Amino acid sequence: MTDTSTPRTDGALSRRSVLAGAAAAMFVPASVAALGSTAGAAPAVATGRGTTAAAAGSPATARATAGTVHKITMYVEDLGNGQTGYGLEPGKATIPGPLLEMYEGDTMEITLVNTTDRDVSIHPHGVLYDVNSDGSPFNRSYNGPGETRTYVWRTTGERSLGRWARPGTAGYWHYHDHAMGTPHGTAGVAAGLYGGLIVRRQGDILPDRQFTVVFNGMLINNKLAPDTPMFEANHGETVEFICIGHGDMFHTFHLHAHRWANTRTGYLEGPRDSSQIIDNRDLNGGDSFGFQVIAGEDVGPGAWMYHCHVQFHSDAGMSGIFLVRNADGSMPDGAQESIDWFHDHEGSGHH
Amino acid sequence: MTDTSTPRTDGALSRRSVLAGAAAAMFVPASVAALGSTAGAAPAVATGRGTTAAAAGSPATARATAGTVHKITMYVEDLGNGQTGYGLEPGKATIPGPLLEMYEGDTMEITLVNTTDRDVSIHPHGVLYDVNSDGSPFNRSYNGPGETRTYVWRTTGERSLGRWARPGTAGYWHYHDHAMGTPHGTAGVAAGLYGGLIVRRQGDILPDRQFTVVFNGMLINNKLAPDTPMFEANHGETVEFICIGHGDMFHTFHLHAHRWANTRTGYLEGPRDSSQIIDNRDLNGGDSFGFQVIAGEDVGPGAWMYHCHVQFHSDAGMSGIFLVRNADGSMPDGAQESIDWFHDHEGSGHH
Amino acid sequence: MTDTSTPRTDGALSRRSVLAGAAAAMFVPASVAALGSTAGAAPAVATGRGTTAAAAGSPATARATAGTVHKITMYVEDLGNGQTGYGLEPGKATIPGPLLEMYEGDTMEITLVNTTDRDVSIHPHGVLYDVNSDGSPFNRSYNGPGETRTYVWRTTGERSLGRWARPGTAGYWHYHDHAMGTPHGTAGVAAGLYGGLIVRRQGDILPDRQFTVVFNGMLINNKLAPDTPMFEANHGETVEFICIGHGDMFHTFHLHAHRWANTRTGYLEGPRDSSQIIDNRDLNGGDSFGFQVIAGEDVGPGAWMYHCHVQFHSDAGMSGIFLVRNADGSMPDGAQESIDWFHDHEGSGHH
Repeated sequence: MTDTSTPRTDGALSRRSVLAGAAAAMFVPASVAALGSTAGAAPAVATGRGTTAAAAGSPATARATAGTVHKITMYVEDLGNGQTGYGLEPGKATIPGPLLEMYEGDTMEITLVNTTDRDVSIHPHGVLYDVNSDGSPFNRSYNGPGETRTYVWRTTGERSLGRWARPGTAGYWHYHDHAMGTPHGTAGVAAGLYGGLIVRRQGDILPDRQFTVVFNGMLINNKLAPDTPMFEANHGETVEFICIGHGDMFHTFHLHAHRWANTRTGYLEGPRDSSQIIDNRDLNGGDSFGFQVIAGEDVGPGAWMYHCHVQFHSDAGMSGIFLVRNADGSMPDGAQESIDWFHDHEGSGHH
Repeated sequence: MTDTSTPRTDGALSRRSVLAGAAAAMFVPASVAALGSTAGAAPAVATGRGTTAAAAGSPATARATAGTVHKITMYVEDLGNGQTGYGLEPGKATIPGPLLEMYEGDTMEITLVNTTDRDVSIHPHGVLYDVNSDGSPFNRSYNGPGETRTYVWRTTGERSLGRWARPGTAGYWHYHDHAMGTPHGTAGVAAGLYGGLIVRRQGDILPDRQFTVVFNGMLINNKLAPDTPMFEANHGETVEFICIGHGDMFHTFHLHAHRWANTRTGYLEGPRDSSQIIDNRDLNGGDSFGFQVIAGEDVGPGAWMYHCHVQFHSDAGMSGIFLVRNADGSMPDGAQESIDWFHDHEGSGHH
Repeated sequence: MTDTSTPRTDGALSRRSVLAGAAAAMFVPASVAALGSTAGAAPAVATGRGTTAAAAGSPATARATAGTVHKITMYVEDLGNGQTGYGLEPGKATIPGPLLEMYEGDTMEITLVNTTDRDVSIHPHGVLYDVNSDGSPFNRSYNGPGETRTYVWRTTGERSLGRWARPGTAGYWHYHDHAMGTPHGTAGVAAGLYGGLIVRRQGDILPDRQFTVVFNGMLINNKLAPDTPMFEANHGETVEFICIGHGDMFHTFHLHAHRWANTRTGYLEGPRDSSQIIDNRDLNGGDSFGFQVIAGEDVGPGAWMYHCHVQFHSDAGMSGIFLVRNADGSMPDGAQESIDWFHDHEGSGHH
């Protein structure tokens, strides 16, 4: 095990160790941590502490000063079985697509390569774009079959308005297709064309691990239990969940034994912050939120469930595992038994 | 173009220009700005900067000091095709009804004239009323066929409770029928008996334009695309959206290229405000929220979509246009093409 | 009428009187206040001002210093007609189960006695527990038929992280079965195995009365109008609503003539708190929130409705009465007529 922990920008958190076998992995893309995932690795565009998952073979995009222009190429690729994904390299498309990150003040230029025979696009939430980067047929902003097109996303900090401030663009956002099938990209979203987008504010706390969870219709990351992602972290690591809702159903996201504040970051802004603390939240079409928790903090390591709390959705397979390993990366007592139980009992085929 | 901008109460915003052809229009009712709307103008009760839309021929209700008593008459009228609306003058009923505004401390006395042959009422959210103004058959508070009845709504500021405060009544609220058809006014709401109600706090930022958006079942303001309202503003104007949910469906409201804080006003209370910044929000039965954005700020003029982000709802016609004109009121490049595309492709008949 | 009001911890609230006939009742369990309820009394575990409802014959659990260990025994019992409840004494199970309360820093040890012939458990939201107290078959944490098992819930305050704070466990939470029928306790929740759980922070304002409202499928506390609970308070009393969502439907909770802030407590943290003030809120599976209002404040006594604001849900019977009596406990003018009207008109059988 290699200790690659680095000082935090805020100086408030203790040093952490990263998962054995994923040395130097500061930003682990969601699908890498997914046990049994059939999708390839989704390389994250890491703008945080400077490195991405070496184990995933993804290029590191170092964090520069605010105002960085991130130029990336994204490939839309068919993955078979009616599934389609975004990827940062040819042949590497995943569902969800790569987790993209920026700081307020940054710009991202995305050259989108459409390798499919349908119209596709990339439409972001939260960030700034002109009509040419809207990603909609409505604004003639999409890629025809085989076409390449560049989309530009910008960000900004908040602006003082006297006692108020106009919001900036910091947040847990997301991107998705807005062109395939209908004017609203319904076919593209259903096929898997979605991913997480984080815009951080300078000084925000950075996580050790990141998990993207997309409730899409009755699926999680286009899978049903027991094939839903198992997210893994070591006891004491700071993990970040990016939760996104899509499709035609209503959902609530619930995580066992961990909780967060219903704020921009999941943290409170000190003792006078009146925000509600939650462990369950609505997650409907186009919604997104994120938060960080210390894996197993105050509750210990073990296998914990995350699931939609609409009863028949969880019964039908909208559930998965958050595996908190021991601090040294070893398996906690009983966790393998829980994982086995999950594979034997969860999902619509079991009831 | 006439520049009618006036100093803001907070002194923080720059001067704005109003739309050519609507000089002195500070509070433009939602339906006036709706392109292709068949409904007549819905005169707003403006309690803000002193004037209402001259173009709409509506009476101005000047803002006085806190504690103003606003006495208005509202007419419930059948509009044909099973539609029913509220209006401030005979023959002027609209869907949604007129946008009503108060300041904390004000009172509104509404003399409701029922010109229909069914039971109707007006039930407000957020404000203060005794059982006689509840607007429900449960409290014998409704108008029988042809009857006239007065409802009184009061407001209050917050009250200190030591370190806490009991909330006042400031907010983006709404009103609706609570008597037609069933004990809960289901038939009245379905027919169009709803409208926006704003209670401001002294010093709140005032907008240049206002748009009321009601997701009612599978309709927006009782219309389907392409007949949904097109909201128009000039680049740089402060526009206020009042979003209201009704009916039996669940929805999320999404606006392209603009974002707001999930707070009472849509603004942040300075840099320590931890609230989430959003561009998509749940909008279910009885819910309401509002926010202000600078039209086209940081993204430029153009035709932008607003829509329900539940995929099959947007595909079925729950979408509309937010047209941000150039600052001088002229049409941005490509915008007319987008509007034409919308009319040719959006709505349930096109898929 | 006996005045049993006591000084508040914050010293900010005026003296209150309690309901005649329930002297010394500081924490009145929800079902006690429910008119016409067929369920027995649900004794609350009161950790607030030191006493519980003598009228309900429940044992008082005195509030000690932070760090108190509350040891209680809970019984899972069949109530007939497919209903099952939790209770603090044999033969006293109710739907919802007893309202449980802790302060941040407290621990609760629950010895759960399963008197049924099915698997059951108790799974809490918001608090701290290790895998052995997860309450899920997934972690082999449940009671088999006839078995007794102890679950341990812990709590913690927030922890400073420099300018941020990690959230503590204070909140309006809930508990429910996670074992009966399916891996997610769907059968248990449907049968009535749920209840409220409050974790307070030192100094939080304490209420005079408490009402637990559970939207469970199309039912409220497993009842349809007109059999839904009627919550009663005297004009001027501080009443606390604990709202919980369960089942497969989406809902919004609406209360007439009262409003609260969308915060942890329902109060604002002073004049710079930007939180929205609401009277209607989403209440979906696994969600919970709570708030306090002064009964009839600024609006007077009377019979007020609470209901799901999804129209066909309210029409089908998801509504109930919040009866605000006069300050001396007598019936307000017209209130009995409203109650009679409710019994004659509300519920799915009436339309």
